Amino acid sequence: MADKIFRVNMADLSTKIEDVPEAWMGHGGRGLTSTIVAAEVVPTCHPLGEDNKIVIAPGLLSGTTASNSGRISVGAKSPLTGTIKESNSGGTAAQFLARCGCKAIIIEGLPKGDAWYNLAVSPEGITIAEESEVLGMGNMAAIKIIKARTDDKIALMLTGPAGEMKMSAANISITDPSNDIRSCGRGGLGAVMGSKKIKFITIKPGKNKVEIANPEAFNAANRVFTKALSSHPVSQALGQYGTNVLVNLINESGGMPTKNFTAGQYADHEAISGETMHDTIVERGGKPKHNCHPGCVINCSQLYNDAEGNKLTTGFEYETIWALGADCSINNLDVIAKADQIMDDIGVDSIEVPVAIAVAMEAGVLEFGDAAEVLRILTEEVAKGTPLGRIIGNGAGSVGKAYGVTRVPVVKNQAIPAYDPRAIKGIGITYATSTQGADHTMGYTIATNILGVGGSCDPLSKEGQIELSRNLQTATAAIDSTGMCLFIAFAALDDATCLPALIDLLNARFGISLDGNDVVNLGQHILKTERAFNQAAGFTNKDDRLPEFFYKEALPPHNVVFDFTGEEIDSFWDF
Amino acid sequence: MADKIFRVNMADLSTKIEDVPEAWMGHGGRGLTSTIVAAEVVPTCHPLGEDNKIVIAPGLLSGTTASNSGRISVGAKSPLTGTIKESNSGGTAAQFLARCGCKAIIIEGLPKGDAWYNLAVSPEGITIAEESEVLGMGNMAAIKIIKARTDDKIALMLTGPAGEMKMSAANISITDPSNDIRSCGRGGLGAVMGSKKIKFITIKPGKNKVEIANPEAFNAANRVFTKALSSHPVSQALGQYGTNVLVNLINESGGMPTKNFTAGQYADHEAISGETMHDTIVERGGKPKHNCHPGCVINCSQLYNDAEGNKLTTGFEYETIWALGADCSINNLDVIAKADQIMDDIGVDSIEVPVAIAVAMEAGVLEFGDAAEVLRILTEEVAKGTPLGRIIGNGAGSVGKAYGVTRVPVVKNQAIPAYDPRAIKGIGITYATSTQGADHTMGYTIATNILGVGGSCDPLSKEGQIELSRNLQTATAAIDSTGMCLFIAFAALDDATCLPALIDLLNARFGISLDGNDVVNLGQHILKTERAFNQAAGFTNKDDRLPEFFYKEALPPHNVVFDFTGEEIDSFWDF
Repeated sequence: MADKIFRVNMADLSTKIEDVPEAWMGHGGRGLTSTIVAAEVVPTCHPLGEDNKIVIAPGLLSGTTASNSGRISVGAKSPLTGTIKESNSGGTAAQFLARCGCKAIIIEGLPKGDAWYNLAVSPEGITIAEESEVLGMGNMAAIKIIKARTDDKIALMLTGPAGEMKMSAANISITDPSNDIRSCGRGGLGAVMGSKKIKFITIKPGKNKVEIANPEAFNAANRVFTKALSSHPVSQALGQYGTNVLVNLINESGGMPTKNFTAGQYADHEAISGETMHDTIVERGGKPKHNCHPGCVINCSQLYNDAEGNKLTTGFEYETIWALGADCSINNLDVIAKADQIMDDIGVDSIEVPVAIAVAMEAGVLEFGDAAEVLRILTEEVAKGTPLGRIIGNGAGSVGKAYGVTRVPVVKNQAIPAYDPRAIKGIGITYATSTQGADHTMGYTIATNILGVGGSCDPLSKEGQIELSRNLQTATAAIDSTGMCLFIAFAALDDATCLPALIDLLNARFGISLDGNDVVNLGQHILKTERAFNQAAGFTNKDDRLPEFFYKEALPPHNVVFDFTGEEIDSFWDF
Repeated sequence: MADKIFRVNMADLSTKIEDVPEAWMGHGGRGLTSTIVAAEVVPTCHPLGEDNKIVIAPGLLSGTTASNSGRISVGAKSPLTGTIKESNSGGTAAQFLARCGCKAIIIEGLPKGDAWYNLAVSPEGITIAEESEVLGMGNMAAIKIIKARTDDKIALMLTGPAGEMKMSAANISITDPSNDIRSCGRGGLGAVMGSKKIKFITIKPGKNKVEIANPEAFNAANRVFTKALSSHPVSQALGQYGTNVLVNLINESGGMPTKNFTAGQYADHEAISGETMHDTIVERGGKPKHNCHPGCVINCSQLYNDAEGNKLTTGFEYETIWALGADCSINNLDVIAKADQIMDDIGVDSIEVPVAIAVAMEAGVLEFGDAAEVLRILTEEVAKGTPLGRIIGNGAGSVGKAYGVTRVPVVKNQAIPAYDPRAIKGIGITYATSTQGADHTMGYTIATNILGVGGSCDPLSKEGQIELSRNLQTATAAIDSTGMCLFIAFAALDDATCLPALIDLLNARFGISLDGNDVVNLGQHILKTERAFNQAAGFTNKDDRLPEFFYKEALPPHNVVFDFTGEEIDSFWDF
């Protein structure tokens, strides 16, 4: 049975199962969400108004046995950036959706009254029901209640209190195999879900096996692919230390933004490093390895316990630890883990909100390093939607505007994450040119600039950075369409067997015959589709720039500025 | 002695007196501020950063005996809109500056430390001194102290607590002949002044008479001009009722935005009308007529007393009364007057802030009509810079973002004033296309759409509105360059002697020979200069649009939407 589009109209509370239009056939994940958003959403619409749509799509390989293929893509016009947005996450939603025969869910319109709703997806289709029980509840409590009420095995996509309040940093939170939380974190997609008054979506595991055109070839390719993934040293480091392995590496490079981007090294980096985290986890009986979806062979997640051995948080990422650690100067992993737990429960982006707090620290709202006040602000202000909570819950740009701060690390109003573009210049090109605001995952030049993956490219030199970012952004757009985790990129860049195996997986799945050029073309096509949406929404090359302080304030210890001209940045788009 | 540029560099606390470059010679007021901002300010700069500049310029006729020629223009890149901005005001600053031989003040750079400063202008030049005494003080108290310390006769330009806190709705406040407050209100120029840590600027009256090339012709022209002004019926109505004469007229038209732009008529309009206001003023021993600068023959200002006969406010404008009255549904002129007094004292735009409060009412922060809470919010939140005060003090767009509201009446993030563009379509074209965000004074089509001045043009029909707005925006740009009050436009549109007399005044002042075409060319040149700045800052035709609710929600009682296509709006710029 061919996959279908599950369409939900919240204006009249109707649902429809539609055939997939020819033009969308070859797309999945980000390629599909961006294609549908570009086709159906008015680019100039208000992101929280009736003309915006939420598109949810598993990747092309999701639901199959291919390793690491369980990412779910959610797309819409972003209330944070005003651009097109795709945010992807682990969890079980992608695999279950695929096994429900769902190519994509499209949610359109706004309901008329004050009632809230939930959606239920099964192989039979999608239904809408009124919801009141879990409104206003934190994600942890809501997940327990919903699962008890429905089925513990479902995948759950939900918006927390932040999304109900339509904060621009609101996540769509997604359950993983342990009922822990993964997040579509960037760009405020939870607010779009909140605007449509959808508290949660349940997805039954599905009974349909995803059809494989050539199972034998598929399994053979998957063996090669899995071996390439699991044998790459970065995969192994990620399995051992999580993404937080980066603290010491990025600090050493001088590119770890510290105290709201005023320095490139954090004196207390050891206190928050991946090595410290690993030892703490082991000591307290947590789990250094944990997967966000079945079939992951990297296991970069972990279970971080408190001193008493009780679970504090999971999916504890470098970027979150950096943001609260170096950027807010909180040198205590337990506090950061507690903050991460609270942010997961509220359902806010754990990059955007801590970067916003660092800007508030610069504004004098609280002191750098004031851990207690950070926890209080998250619990008493953001979670409750007080005025200060709204200012912070709407992100770093919002704090900058509220307090008249000029050192505000955002591009297209989205917070710049954990890599300073002055000392790691390639990532600056990604931040500037990304179709979705500042986002390291759009073209992770850190791989080549710092980790020596895919060759090398001096992070302090301008040379080669534009091409590097272009190649990685192109590849990423394609990878984000497959349902694959971005962390396959390390193996793909270094191991000659990896990318061909991935292409073989796609070919065997669909009975087609893509080659490497097709993948590049797909990636370029997605980038151009997204950029065209943004241009139609009013974005220009003037938006493809970093905030002026990166050009003016030299970053210690290298004392470097971001020195790409506008013309150089614009040449990114010469393809 | 030829006029000079007084240049102040806050980075090194230096000042310079410069000759006026040839290219700036023929400009004054808005034409000069926009020319200088376009020439010297990096269009993409942060408005509160070191690359923005404040330009202050009297008009071409300011300082002369020409009637109504005392408007001062202040220009910069706006922190509210991100566009170029000119905001003009009455008061004595323009005339005194002209008599100090100052063609324009240019203030650039940011001071390095925490100290604040004041500037003092005299015929000898401009000086910088540290200031601490009046920091944090409301405008009323600050004016008294500064005048006692310096000279009661000086003109004073100051920024209130809102500007010190860099709120995007912060005014630059200007003293008038009675030491009451006039405001450069729109676009947050007070925040730019605050960013440069300038609390106030004193301007000595100056002893130099402004040179007149042909005094006899000047005086003859001024007689004709003055007669045309003072005999026009709208001038007379403005003298009797102030601008608030408009409440009943606009309400009758069905274009008075009510309850955050959900209706076009306000049931309690009589309670806040110009007629009621006039009677109340007379009854309480106030003054129905009051001038904002010497030489005004219209006297649209007034002194509004409380029930005990004590001064409550002056310069009590229709747009403020509309915003707190109809838009916030406060049917009590005394409360509105009190709020106006508080806003003058804090130094915030009395259009932007009340429109922001109405959006907050829609968000449920307070109830429509809750007068006590409005006064509390102004006094306890905005004045003190609490988080809610910052949200509101940064304008209607800020409130909309903080609370996820979609019905947010702004264009280029500046609040739409007192005329609904659905029922008065010409003004919608002005809001959409203005180089400075929504601003009725940029091309006041109300004159022709509603008042029957300069012909007639059905407010409910699309026909003729684009041409009308274009002609008025062009004329306004030219008028704003002369130092003339915009209210000369009524006479200029209807009385065949008025505009030639104005041109004669310019010719006699400078010994030149402009004709009507030169005035049109000047206006068009200014509009194009301003638009080019905005385009270089990243604005496109997508920014020349009204919020989507104006296209979707029909406005009672006429049940009309704003129905210009994008292409039609863009044709505004075909000149």
